[in-house]
Amino acid sequence: MTLNFKIEDGGVLKVESRTGESVLDTAKRAGVAIDAPCGGNGTCGKCRVRLLSGTLDGEKSKYITNEDWNEGWRLACAHKPTGDVEIFVPAAAQAFQSRIRVTDFSGEREKTAFAALCATLNELGFFGDSSLELCEITLTPPSLDDAQADAGRLIAAISAAENVEETSIRLGLSALRRLPQAVRTGNFTVKAVLRREEDGAITVLDVRCDAEGGHALAGLAIDIGTTTVSLLLVDLTTGRPIAAASGGNAQIRFGADVINRIIESTKPGGLERLRCAIIDECLSPLIRRLCASAGLDTGCVYRVAVAGNTTMTHLFLGTPPEFLRLEPYVPAFFDTPRLNAGEIGLPVNPQADTIIAPAIGSYVGGDITAGVLAADFYRKENFSLFVDLGTNGELVFGNMEFLFSCACSAGPAFEGGEISCGMRATTGAVEKCAINTAGEPELTIIGESGTKAAGLCGSGLIDIIGELFRCGLINAKGKFISEGKRIVKDEYGGSGYVVVFAAESATGGDIVLSEADIDNFIRAKGAIFSAIRTMLAIVDMSSDVIETVYVAGGIGSGIDIDHAILIGMFPKLPREKYVYIGNSSLSGAYAMLTSRGAARKTNEIARSMTYIELSSHPAYMDEFVAACFLPHTDAGLFA
Amino acid sequence: MTLNFKIEDGGVLKVESRTGESVLDTAKRAGVAIDAPCGGNGTCGKCRVRLLSGTLDGEKSKYITNEDWNEGWRLACAHKPTGDVEIFVPAAAQAFQSRIRVTDFSGEREKTAFAALCATLNELGFFGDSSLELCEITLTPPSLDDAQADAGRLIAAISAAENVEETSIRLGLSALRRLPQAVRTGNFTVKAVLRREEDGAITVLDVRCDAEGGHALAGLAIDIGTTTVSLLLVDLTTGRPIAAASGGNAQIRFGADVINRIIESTKPGGLERLRCAIIDECLSPLIRRLCASAGLDTGCVYRVAVAGNTTMTHLFLGTPPEFLRLEPYVPAFFDTPRLNAGEIGLPVNPQADTIIAPAIGSYVGGDITAGVLAADFYRKENFSLFVDLGTNGELVFGNMEFLFSCACSAGPAFEGGEISCGMRATTGAVEKCAINTAGEPELTIIGESGTKAAGLCGSGLIDIIGELFRCGLINAKGKFISEGKRIVKDEYGGSGYVVVFAAESATGGDIVLSEADIDNFIRAKGAIFSAIRTMLAIVDMSSDVIETVYVAGGIGSGIDIDHAILIGMFPKLPREKYVYIGNSSLSGAYAMLTSRGAARKTNEIARSMTYIELSSHPAYMDEFVAACFLPHTDAGLFA
Repeated sequence: MTLNFKIEDGGVLKVESRTGESVLDTAKRAGVAIDAPCGGNGTCGKCRVRLLSGTLDGEKSKYITNEDWNEGWRLACAHKPTGDVEIFVPAAAQAFQSRIRVTDFSGEREKTAFAALCATLNELGFFGDSSLELCEITLTPPSLDDAQADAGRLIAAISAAENVEETSIRLGLSALRRLPQAVRTGNFTVKAVLRREEDGAITVLDVRCDAEGGHALAGLAIDIGTTTVSLLLVDLTTGRPIAAASGGNAQIRFGADVINRIIESTKPGGLERLRCAIIDECLSPLIRRLCASAGLDTGCVYRVAVAGNTTMTHLFLGTPPEFLRLEPYVPAFFDTPRLNAGEIGLPVNPQADTIIAPAIGSYVGGDITAGVLAADFYRKENFSLFVDLGTNGELVFGNMEFLFSCACSAGPAFEGGEISCGMRATTGAVEKCAINTAGEPELTIIGESGTKAAGLCGSGLIDIIGELFRCGLINAKGKFISEGKRIVKDEYGGSGYVVVFAAESATGGDIVLSEADIDNFIRAKGAIFSAIRTMLAIVDMSSDVIETVYVAGGIGSGIDIDHAILIGMFPKLPREKYVYIGNSSLSGAYAMLTSRGAARKTNEIARSMTYIELSSHPAYMDEFVAACFLPHTDAGLFA
Repeated sequence: MTLNFKIEDGGVLKVESRTGESVLDTAKRAGVAIDAPCGGNGTCGKCRVRLLSGTLDGEKSKYITNEDWNEGWRLACAHKPTGDVEIFVPAAAQAFQSRIRVTDFSGEREKTAFAALCATLNELGFFGDSSLELCEITLTPPSLDDAQADAGRLIAAISAAENVEETSIRLGLSALRRLPQAVRTGNFTVKAVLRREEDGAITVLDVRCDAEGGHALAGLAIDIGTTTVSLLLVDLTTGRPIAAASGGNAQIRFGADVINRIIESTKPGGLERLRCAIIDECLSPLIRRLCASAGLDTGCVYRVAVAGNTTMTHLFLGTPPEFLRLEPYVPAFFDTPRLNAGEIGLPVNPQADTIIAPAIGSYVGGDITAGVLAADFYRKENFSLFVDLGTNGELVFGNMEFLFSCACSAGPAFEGGEISCGMRATTGAVEKCAINTAGEPELTIIGESGTKAAGLCGSGLIDIIGELFRCGLINAKGKFISEGKRIVKDEYGGSGYVVVFAAESATGGDIVLSEADIDNFIRAKGAIFSAIRTMLAIVDMSSDVIETVYVAGGIGSGIDIDHAILIGMFPKLPREKYVYIGNSSLSGAYAMLTSRGAARKTNEIARSMTYIELSSHPAYMDEFVAACFLPHTDAGLFA
């Protein structure tokens, strides 16, 4: 049986189906990207494809309306071919795949966050300590009487210029390969990229000449989220970001959360599939696009800093994460040895040091240690709470004396996953919403003026649910208790709120927030709030001691804190105690990229943090159940 | 226009031809291996293919008989398609391509040479100093109360076992990737491969457990010749060779000699084509086969030592060799920085140190410095002459006080190139020959008893030409002066000697040594003899001072020295002064593999050697012309 995939904007692929394989299974095997945040369990409705010819065997799901069913729409995970079939894969089924967005890093919020981070790095004396330098070196030209090889000639010149012994200067392979042409094109004057090692030795990473063009001393900060990957290309001579990009983590077709990815990794070839998904399908094209947008050769990236949760960094290195989820929950590594980009497979200078923010446990990873570095509260006397809203929610509480951390499975709702109309915070996402007295929503959509809405990202979800609750359209259980032209019923009897009507949407269909979506979201916010409560209880403190709450996560324009408190996601504290710090994992990676001091400090922070396993605290489950209401079963907490 | 290549023993490949491309050009571009030792100039006759359908435009060459022409045989380099064509590529047109031969290293000659080398290494205290060790390490199992990561656990255990600080122990990426499974399969006892660095630090290259099987502490010695590549897989715990393999250098389709390869490297994409030819097409399959024959995972190769001429090592590393042939003849490097196998692209443990024997000039490379190490005369008081017979001929003359070296373009005749019936010293090659009083040849053929002759290798050529001259069948100019059933004339009027009649040959055709072949060979032997004469003249010495002549080169069963003197290739010295030492480049690489001391010694030898540029000595050309006779214009030299 042949499956003929016709991919919107992406050509055609013929694949031979294997007995018993669902359409999604075949697509995964063949590398056809189809979203499956639920891992193919039929519970997210994201893998909608359309049958063009042939027949598929499988049951209709609640995610497919009767009308769509008649038009051939099916869930790829729930259907198997019974013969040759033609399948249309719409762009919408690839919304969580890598969509590259290159920015000029000129947004107001980015500028503010970046300025604050730079001020901190300066204060700590960390700025501009990347270990790399671009030096102009002039060589003695060879002659028949002086037939020394190019490499020896370069090393002698660097030795003289830098006053370092020749035996302490090592030439990297990329530098060696470029050397003969560069010295001759540059008439024996070249720009050498030197890395000063801790022991005083010098490694020559590259040799170019001005006439060759396209050169800079660049570095990459990378945040590998379970759902979203973000990159910052940085000029390491100035520390200035040159360009930013983000995209979906291509591993999403193996499941939205880390548990499904870990399970996939234990299947034959699974670990390598996941490694390729992040390295080859996701990061490599993003890096190439980023560099191209800045007019740089990718070989000019000489240092890379990566932050991600423990599962993500294991998969990034191709290290089995299998034992993270088996008692006693031991990862392969917390911190990594010295690694270079070539051995990892990143398309940058192969000798580029690739540093990875250290993890402190199976479920509190380098995204959090890097985030704590960036939030900069580990040096303060007052107590702070740090909340990172991602596919997992992680919390850190403490001050200069101690730092406690824990993780809760919030699920991917904050990044738009497991929400029927959810999407990442990218072009077309509703990122803000207010509902006016007429019950009509007033939306802010990411993208240029006039961009039509395609779905809801995390901050939009918080706003809409907060507004529906504030306006009395939904009750404490998240059920609709009112009627109106925007409140519709689906064929199973559930209600929903039409955020955008079909005529105004980018997808051509209504964008509807259903009760099932609200229910998923309530569980996500409940997980966060109950984790905050449990952790404070463990250290025997109340939320009153908190001086500042740092809210991190790339979920849109930043959270509307009033809405977040209104729905019982965050504790009721004075509004000014809340600071939204954006993607702190990426900021921390940026700090580690531009500064070896910051990288060392992150390791110190990691060593000083204590990990608390929430699941071993019986009170947590009770707290969670109590928090799965709007705002809470104990409404007094939010009075 | 479509070219449909039907490859003997190798399937079918369809390629679109480009305007103006010869069949050979298209084959090169598409990766269809067709021998072209002359680089496609129509002067070697090795690229014989057969037209099955369609028409080709081109002239008949002297390498194609009328009969063959009528059967469709053509030179691929001299013909262009005029429409769709089908081309048969016979195995004979791939004789110089990689043919893998795995041996158990049990031949008498190998045993003797190996024993002598080991004795030398022992005497020098170099044996068993590869820096690598296989250690059994037992880790404390983790628990809920001790959730240290696997990596930290391993480092702690090694630190305790080896009494080295934890901060001085570095885990390689391959070790990290294997660690979680290995410790659990091995019940927390593993075999770790440790490399002791010069500064006392330890690098953990690998972690395996006995239950996983297929493991050993192995290394690879590699000789990259212009024509032939030879490998030795070595057990580094004992120093014992496990298996040997050799094959043709796949770069041969870009020309037989280094000059043609250098020219190819300057074409767009040419350098990468040559790098891939040696790394991906030639070495990688040989390494995989070698390891498979020994039942080892290729990841168990933890150290690699490589020797080759300067052009070969430049191409091996993907470094442009372009300036080797342009005045002032400066290579990119003499010695290499520390390199690992992963960055070079060898399919072994990516962290394996890959050491390369140092070059001393554009035309005296690491094959010679490694060869001098293996021949071991650099420590002697008496004068020695070292002659390496390859595609280039290289000479070293000297003693413990000084070493002079030079190179001459002998051409590929000693390895069977540019000889119509020539082949490498592999199965089917005539490696010895005596002609009896009836004018009949008595042949020794490489391979099992009963193997039919397919061509002549270097040692066979020396024997046959020596015998033809001794028996008076050819004159001093190499022309036939006699008649007989084995002496035939071709259609151009040239004569030849039928070494093997079609009925007895493996190719199904006569194996004929023509006057053109003899002429090519005389120029090769003349280049060697005149180089010896010129170098001795430069240091103002005569051949009488030579105590020992070391003859190196993988040209068959070893040279018959009497024949070599008879034809004027080597100076007339007492027979016992000559020692045939086989592939000394490979032996030197073996020494560098098993011993860091030997590797350092090779660098010392390289620094102490003086390179002499023969072409800048006017006497050399006169010497060469005088040496292009059998035995020499001055027959008194051989009286």
